[in-house]
Amino acid sequence: MTQPHFNQIAIVGVGLLGGSLGMAASHMGIADEVVGVTRTKASIEEARRAEAIDRGTTDLIEGIHEADLVVICTPVSHILSVLPEILSNVKPDAVVTDVGSTKASIVALGEKLAAEHNRKFVGSHPMAGSEKTGVRAAKANLFNESTCFVTRTAQTPSDAFVSVSQFWQALNARLVIARPDRHDRLVASISHLPHIAAVALVRAVESFNEDKNLVKGIIGNGFRDATRIAAGDVRMWEDICSDNRGEINRARAALEKSLTEILEACKPDTCSELGNLLQDARDYREFLDHK
Amino acid sequence: MTQPHFNQIAIVGVGLLGGSLGMAASHMGIADEVVGVTRTKASIEEARRAEAIDRGTTDLIEGIHEADLVVICTPVSHILSVLPEILSNVKPDAVVTDVGSTKASIVALGEKLAAEHNRKFVGSHPMAGSEKTGVRAAKANLFNESTCFVTRTAQTPSDAFVSVSQFWQALNARLVIARPDRHDRLVASISHLPHIAAVALVRAVESFNEDKNLVKGIIGNGFRDATRIAAGDVRMWEDICSDNRGEINRARAALEKSLTEILEACKPDTCSELGNLLQDARDYREFLDHK
Repeated sequence: MTQPHFNQIAIVGVGLLGGSLGMAASHMGIADEVVGVTRTKASIEEARRAEAIDRGTTDLIEGIHEADLVVICTPVSHILSVLPEILSNVKPDAVVTDVGSTKASIVALGEKLAAEHNRKFVGSHPMAGSEKTGVRAAKANLFNESTCFVTRTAQTPSDAFVSVSQFWQALNARLVIARPDRHDRLVASISHLPHIAAVALVRAVESFNEDKNLVKGIIGNGFRDATRIAAGDVRMWEDICSDNRGEINRARAALEKSLTEILEACKPDTCSELGNLLQDARDYREFLDHK
Repeated sequence: MTQPHFNQIAIVGVGLLGGSLGMAASHMGIADEVVGVTRTKASIEEARRAEAIDRGTTDLIEGIHEADLVVICTPVSHILSVLPEILSNVKPDAVVTDVGSTKASIVALGEKLAAEHNRKFVGSHPMAGSEKTGVRAAKANLFNESTCFVTRTAQTPSDAFVSVSQFWQALNARLVIARPDRHDRLVASISHLPHIAAVALVRAVESFNEDKNLVKGIIGNGFRDATRIAAGDVRMWEDICSDNRGEINRARAALEKSLTEILEACKPDTCSELGNLLQDARDYREFLDHK
């Protein structure tokens, strides 16, 4: 594998993912300079102290106009809103990518604008992160052994696709190449639906209006684990749920079908079936979880 | 608090819970002798090696007939099936309890039989344990700072209720006193439904017939956490789901109402509502999770 190299990488949004990217790119010699674009001057200082960027600016165009690689690391709706300005202001040979958790609408817009301005866009989705947010949680090895989707369509320029793929591989991520719509379908069932289900489990308990302190006293590790993702960043998940609503709805239908199937099998006369369902889910999960 | 003391405690079923109980009772001087009733002779040896019991037998009546406290530590359906034999063979002043995850049907049967035979039954449900099973996972501090339900009805004898409560408190469990039906309603929403939802999430992913190795490569910690409880003991959960089906169905209706509410709020024109829902669930969960 060729180690990629960029004179300058611009990171738009220096939070957990953007900050970790900046650290990793510097540590591994992938970039000579990392420029951060933040919303506030205070964030520039914070990102510099964390050694996530070499220098920063709150001016988007100033931050990206000399970059060879631009990585947009903000929530989905913000990515969609800054793509026009970025793709009309980067250098002609620069490559633009993003880390958004949905890909269909982002890649459609990115590739449309890239074609109009004769620029290069490739969608990415590194599946790293946690319920922690912000540059203070950033770390250079965040992407180590994580999975990263890189999108490919008929419009994706091969050289840019290779650059972006090599970039993630240099960070030790495992690549999964997929069409944007295929990505959105896959992550709806393995990531977005589990998130919404966790939120719904919390709200279901809340809806019974039981004494909060009683509930707090009786919840166990099962509830804690099952709902941990509901502690995730609200703004980010708001965007994901809105943007991928169609695929999440499809996955939700499968969830409800499974719930019905399980509860039907709980009836006294179908008990052996219930054992099979539980065992089957256990086996499948064990396969998925096994390193 | 008075430290309880029993000349002999009989534990029916020496797995994770039974084994941990035996260890704790010996270590803390709560029992002079711990007798284990197991299904096989090999299990007796295993339980003795783990220091969970002093001696064991595969004969139920032999195991319980001299005990001052009998704790039934088997799956729900087995508890229901052994209650008649136990309550007609224990000493008149012995106290019988169980650790079943559901309480309405167990306590109804236990109290009915206790009245018939002039014996004493009190239901318990220590909310300890994990996806690990068997006496090899047992540990003396399993119940430390866990929550333990003890049931109380109009039929519960006060002295037996006090004995059982003191027993769990001596193991450093936090007591929650509840009617059996109230217990079943509470645990349906905070324990049984999350379990079934985890199983349904796994089965939903499986139902899409994606390549298993691809799915394995892209699942993240969110999916792992959200579905961890689906790795739990199949036999135990089969019993719980069958026995508490009514309350689980009620909790499921609340879950689906929440799912619908969230997905409705994902529509473009109701976005601010979605943010509120997510934030609300995050706040409530944070309250519950905070030590």
